[in-house]
Amino acid sequence: MDVGELGEFGLIELVTKRFAPTAHVLLGPGDDAAVVQAPDGRVVISTDMLIEGRHFRRDWSSAHDVGRKAAAQNLADIAAMGANPTALVVGLGVPATLDVDWVAQLSDGFATECELVGARIVGGDIVRAELITIAVTVLGDLQGRPAVTRTGAKPGDVIAMAGRLGWAAAGLAILGRGFRSPRVLVDAHRVPEPPYAAGVSAAIHGATSMIDISDGLVSDVRHLAVASGCSMHVHSNLLVVDTPVAEAAAAFNADPLTWVLTGGDDHALVATFPARGGLPDGFIMIGEVLEGDAGVMVDGQAVEASGGWDHFRAEKP
Amino acid sequence: MDVGELGEFGLIELVTKRFAPTAHVLLGPGDDAAVVQAPDGRVVISTDMLIEGRHFRRDWSSAHDVGRKAAAQNLADIAAMGANPTALVVGLGVPATLDVDWVAQLSDGFATECELVGARIVGGDIVRAELITIAVTVLGDLQGRPAVTRTGAKPGDVIAMAGRLGWAAAGLAILGRGFRSPRVLVDAHRVPEPPYAAGVSAAIHGATSMIDISDGLVSDVRHLAVASGCSMHVHSNLLVVDTPVAEAAAAFNADPLTWVLTGGDDHALVATFPARGGLPDGFIMIGEVLEGDAGVMVDGQAVEASGGWDHFRAEKP
Repeated sequence: MDVGELGEFGLIELVTKRFAPTAHVLLGPGDDAAVVQAPDGRVVISTDMLIEGRHFRRDWSSAHDVGRKAAAQNLADIAAMGANPTALVVGLGVPATLDVDWVAQLSDGFATECELVGARIVGGDIVRAELITIAVTVLGDLQGRPAVTRTGAKPGDVIAMAGRLGWAAAGLAILGRGFRSPRVLVDAHRVPEPPYAAGVSAAIHGATSMIDISDGLVSDVRHLAVASGCSMHVHSNLLVVDTPVAEAAAAFNADPLTWVLTGGDDHALVATFPARGGLPDGFIMIGEVLEGDAGVMVDGQAVEASGGWDHFRAEKP
Repeated sequence: MDVGELGEFGLIELVTKRFAPTAHVLLGPGDDAAVVQAPDGRVVISTDMLIEGRHFRRDWSSAHDVGRKAAAQNLADIAAMGANPTALVVGLGVPATLDVDWVAQLSDGFATECELVGARIVGGDIVRAELITIAVTVLGDLQGRPAVTRTGAKPGDVIAMAGRLGWAAAGLAILGRGFRSPRVLVDAHRVPEPPYAAGVSAAIHGATSMIDISDGLVSDVRHLAVASGCSMHVHSNLLVVDTPVAEAAAAFNADPLTWVLTGGDDHALVATFPARGGLPDGFIMIGEVLEGDAGVMVDGQAVEASGGWDHFRAEKP
């Protein structure tokens, strides 16, 4: 059956029955609006839009993958504030000819990812569109703590990261060349694995700033540098090049560090911490914050372009 | 200049500089997420998606109109819970060739409408899309009151409405026939005027159920009937057919009551109240809640189809 035959209300029922209630949800789908708990009197909110062909391809990713990824990239934004995701609303634009099962699988993907953090979809809107369009908004709970913003890094702080880098970029390169393996990298492109718990851990541990790495390490750390007014020094020898990434780079005669420094979509978390306090579990040091022009230095070289690494390499002697 | 030349970060700056801070906003745009006050420990949330060609036409509505309408239909959902809108996030998909001024005007439209209720855009996402796509999520504050849902209507209650009906449908009919006037009706299609303050008034006055009329009086009151398990009796002689609507219907040889009963997009509020309490300012009685099958009766006749009125008329002797 296609979406046009099932109709809007059938679709809404199909989607909403997939979401079990949680303690955060006071009123779920089915009314003009939902009601969600905000226990400490504040709510964290972030939104993202994904469009078929630009943010995902149906021939590269299953509907379940797309649902997980759409949820994950939003949940990661909440984690990057040091907050705990609680609830999501989803706007969905779909062609009338789309198979209903695709929407069911998408919803299951959302449910799977949300369950990892105890969040739930509480509302949404379904409209017809030429291309599949997914608009996700997620709420989070700071549990009484201050939000960890991008503005608090100070000279002398340590820069640290949790999660992985370069995996999704390697997977995208593999798919782009027509391959489907190594599976572990292709899967990393399809479904990121943000280190959700590391966000709250960083906040509890006194992180002075934090960001979700969605565009690439260099360009996102530059946001921290500019917002905090500091110079961020990253040391490439402290960055982990995981074995699958190194092997794929060797096979493609590519530089794995390019993927690690500029590859997006892995949703690692980068945070800054006071130098004397050590790091919370899951974080490794990758550099330090110094006085100086707001920007990113890699191995002592300024990286100017927002994409960064290739340009930076070209400037090297 | 077009959107492609200005780029994502230029666009974000263009949009966000249009929104003055409000007391509800603890952290505005520019970080991984925003932080909004939720003073009573709960937050109301609703979302809608609008797509060019389906929900608005650029040759019929200015960018400013589209911004106001996109905001209004979401703010009305919050009002329909008896809550006060506080903050919005907006996902925006735009073609690279779109003039930057269109986005600026859209943002001004959002700002204009949000100022009516003291709400503010606190975050968003801008991506490329073939058709202009606007995903709005709005938060609201219940100010310590219970949410007014669709489920609480009881036999014996009065059905009442605030706002206007039939105006947007008349305006749409006028535009659809190639006319641009009467301006007051065309404007009603372009920019609804939801009775925002009536939502909170209804809640304070003890409304037992409430809904925003977005699809049409009959189909939306049916949602109240089904959710509450009651029979909703509407009396057409209690419905106001405003002069501009009556005059346009006469000019088109149409039945103005069809517009009033089935026309969408005016975002009136319909609520039920205990019979003995009277009605808050701005509400007029349009019917009563009785025991019986969950559904809508107009002048004692069951209205079966969700569109409703034409079908109902056809059934009349």
